[in-house]
Amino acid sequence: MQAIVQTEEKVTASLELQEVPVPTLKPGEVLVEVKAAGVNRADLLQTQGNYPVPAGASEILGLECAGVIVDAGDTGQTVGQEVACLLTGGGYAQYVAVPEGQLMPIPEGYSFVEAASIVEVACTVWSNIGMLAGLQKEDTFLIHGGAGGIGTFAIQMGKALGVTVAVTAGSTEKLKTCKNLGADILINYKEEDFAEVLKNKADVILDIIGAKYLSQNVKAMAKDAHMVVIGMQGGVKGELNLGHLLAKRGTISATALRGRDEADKARIVSSTVENIWPLLQSKEITPHIDHTLPLAEAAAALQKIQDGTITGKLVLAV
Amino acid sequence: MQAIVQTEEKVTASLELQEVPVPTLKPGEVLVEVKAAGVNRADLLQTQGNYPVPAGASEILGLECAGVIVDAGDTGQTVGQEVACLLTGGGYAQYVAVPEGQLMPIPEGYSFVEAASIVEVACTVWSNIGMLAGLQKEDTFLIHGGAGGIGTFAIQMGKALGVTVAVTAGSTEKLKTCKNLGADILINYKEEDFAEVLKNKADVILDIIGAKYLSQNVKAMAKDAHMVVIGMQGGVKGELNLGHLLAKRGTISATALRGRDEADKARIVSSTVENIWPLLQSKEITPHIDHTLPLAEAAAALQKIQDGTITGKLVLAV
Ligand SMILES: NC(=O)c1ccc[n+]([C@@H]2O[C@H](COP(=O)([O-])OP(=O)(O)OC[C@H]3O[C@@H](n4cnc5c(N)ncnc54)[C@H](OP(=O)(O)O)[C@@H]3O)[C@@H](O)[C@H]2O)c1
Ligand SMILES: NC(=O)c1ccc[n+]([C@@H]2O[C@H](COP(=O)([O-])OP(=O)(O)OC[C@H]3O[C@@H](n4cnc5c(N)ncnc54)[C@H](OP(=O)(O)O)[C@@H]3O)[C@@H](O)[C@H]2O)c1
Repeated sequence: MQAIVQTEEKVTASLELQEVPVPTLKPGEVLVEVKAAGVNRADLLQTQGNYPVPAGASEILGLECAGVIVDAGDTGQTVGQEVACLLTGGGYAQYVAVPEGQLMPIPEGYSFVEAASIVEVACTVWSNIGMLAGLQKEDTFLIHGGAGGIGTFAIQMGKALGVTVAVTAGSTEKLKTCKNLGADILINYKEEDFAEVLKNKADVILDIIGAKYLSQNVKAMAKDAHMVVIGMQGGVKGELNLGHLLAKRGTISATALRGRDEADKARIVSSTVENIWPLLQSKEITPHIDHTLPLAEAAAALQKIQDGTITGKLVLAV
Repeated sequence: MQAIVQTEEKVTASLELQEVPVPTLKPGEVLVEVKAAGVNRADLLQTQGNYPVPAGASEILGLECAGVIVDAGDTGQTVGQEVACLLTGGGYAQYVAVPEGQLMPIPEGYSFVEAASIVEVACTVWSNIGMLAGLQKEDTFLIHGGAGGIGTFAIQMGKALGVTVAVTAGSTEKLKTCKNLGADILINYKEEDFAEVLKNKADVILDIIGAKYLSQNVKAMAKDAHMVVIGMQGGVKGELNLGHLLAKRGTISATALRGRDEADKARIVSSTVENIWPLLQSKEITPHIDHTLPLAEAAAALQKIQDGTITGKLVLAV
């Protein structure tokens, strides 16, 4: 099969389409013919050598895809079934092996490209904000990087769940995108200190910046707030004032989806389908796709992520 | 009525028994004649000016007591009823006003002294470890300061819930106390690094040290661990490596019981009575009282807490 292979260590530009063997199935896996693969910032980090591949996972990039089951292996799945898939790797290819628990239906009326664009963000945002932080109606929900792939999804989910959504972004244009998706409080972090704007107000925070925002996030927390760190674009080591955190009775979690075991992923996939798929169906959440590129242009796609010029998601068509 | 009054700011030794007015009841409160009042480290901090009294709370020390209802106010409670009480202050006195939601039954066969010794620790440990961190059977539960008032209770609760209990303490004698209460893993922090002993093993951590232990606690965390900081005997400002926390998918909370509003306290009191009172009744948890002093000796009692010579709880008999 054709797949994207990195020919030079740490050089994103060295990604190219090559012939590699079709994956062999382990028990409980199905083989999916990939029609579209979502592009994630983690893919970029992986090409740069900053995101180790979990033990046993495919070396090929790609954390989500949509396609058709072509071999059901030892599972009870149906060949020919169209599916969206949460992957631990392997999406940038013609075929990928997928544990049964990581298969999801394609929401009615969704294209393969749309479905492939939504899996990783939906599972990431729902597992952290719904399942872990327990976002409640009437909460104030602060989303950093509101115009990114994660952010554009999180804004819509927040609005669908009836919360007040505050976002940070680095330009007027990106904030406009956030506003169009329903965001209530718009903060240009280049012009304003979000912690001043939201002081003691944020019940739930979805953070992708890490160390650089740690103190400010604690300042923004309301009583009993829960902040979840899923990215560390602003570094890993920060000062935490536990006295300030205790005054808020605050909680800080840091999580990653990829390293979870299969049982954990299956639990998340099933809760995401139960809670988020109806919102996709009713169009309360719609995919926000910047544009689509052919699989062969994976290197160019990751370069665009690097450049920070993308609003929403990039998808590779296979 | 007689009550303990502080005559010199920040001087613990200046506590003395004085005549003060009996508290007047607000709606939803009952008047309790105090028979015994538990002594807490927070009382010491308060006399030193390091624990501000929440707005509207009594200036008199004392976060827990047991006694008899002498005025039911506008509630449906019964005069003459013996009760244990979670207080926001006011326990070091002959009478105290108590919101109805903070009354608890006295476990059968318990003396006033025993009941007064258990309220604050039971509500603190259960709300943090049961309700917030969700301690599960088969977890490894790390308790810092295992021989203290909080620690001796937490060890017994952990064992009653079927978990593996690890404790830290500063002497062989204190560790022996922990062992007698059922602790499985005993760590003398003056001789060993607990983070090495428990590396990647602790599912739930109850921390009273704060900043000084922050990095070591993260190191001790197992996957999906939850650590709750309730004391900061080792300072407030620490470095947090979010990369290390994310590798564990860890959660850090910091909480205090006293500042919670009445509804929140009532919720905690009722869950504690539901989950912990049966364990007191069945003697799976027994109060661990170092000794009892008369109310007039409150200053001496707090001096003993300061000196660190107490194992378990001190109680004032009124
Ligand atoms: N832990 C997990 O399981 C998991 C899963 C998925 C994603 N992630 C992480 O989540 C992050 C977001 O992913 P993504 O797919 O949404 O990436 P993305 O589409 O590239 O978006 C990243 C966003 O970050 C914004 N940004 C950069 N610096 C910022 C700052 N100082 N304040 C606010 N926003 C800032 C950028 O917008 P501006 O130009 O406005 O700054 C951009 O929109 C990444 O770090 C990714 O690795 C983690
Ligand atoms: N946030 C809340 O809601 C809340 C409620 C109740 C209590 N607290 C806090 O919880 C803490 C414990 O309360 P307590 O009533 O149990 O106090 P305590 O009876 O005085 O016990 C404190 C314990 O800390 C131990 N300790 C001191 N330094 C230590 C270290 N480096 N490592 C391990 N243990 C150490 C002492 O034992 P060693 O001699 O062995 O060191 C002592 O047994 C206090 O800080 C208190 O303020 C908080």
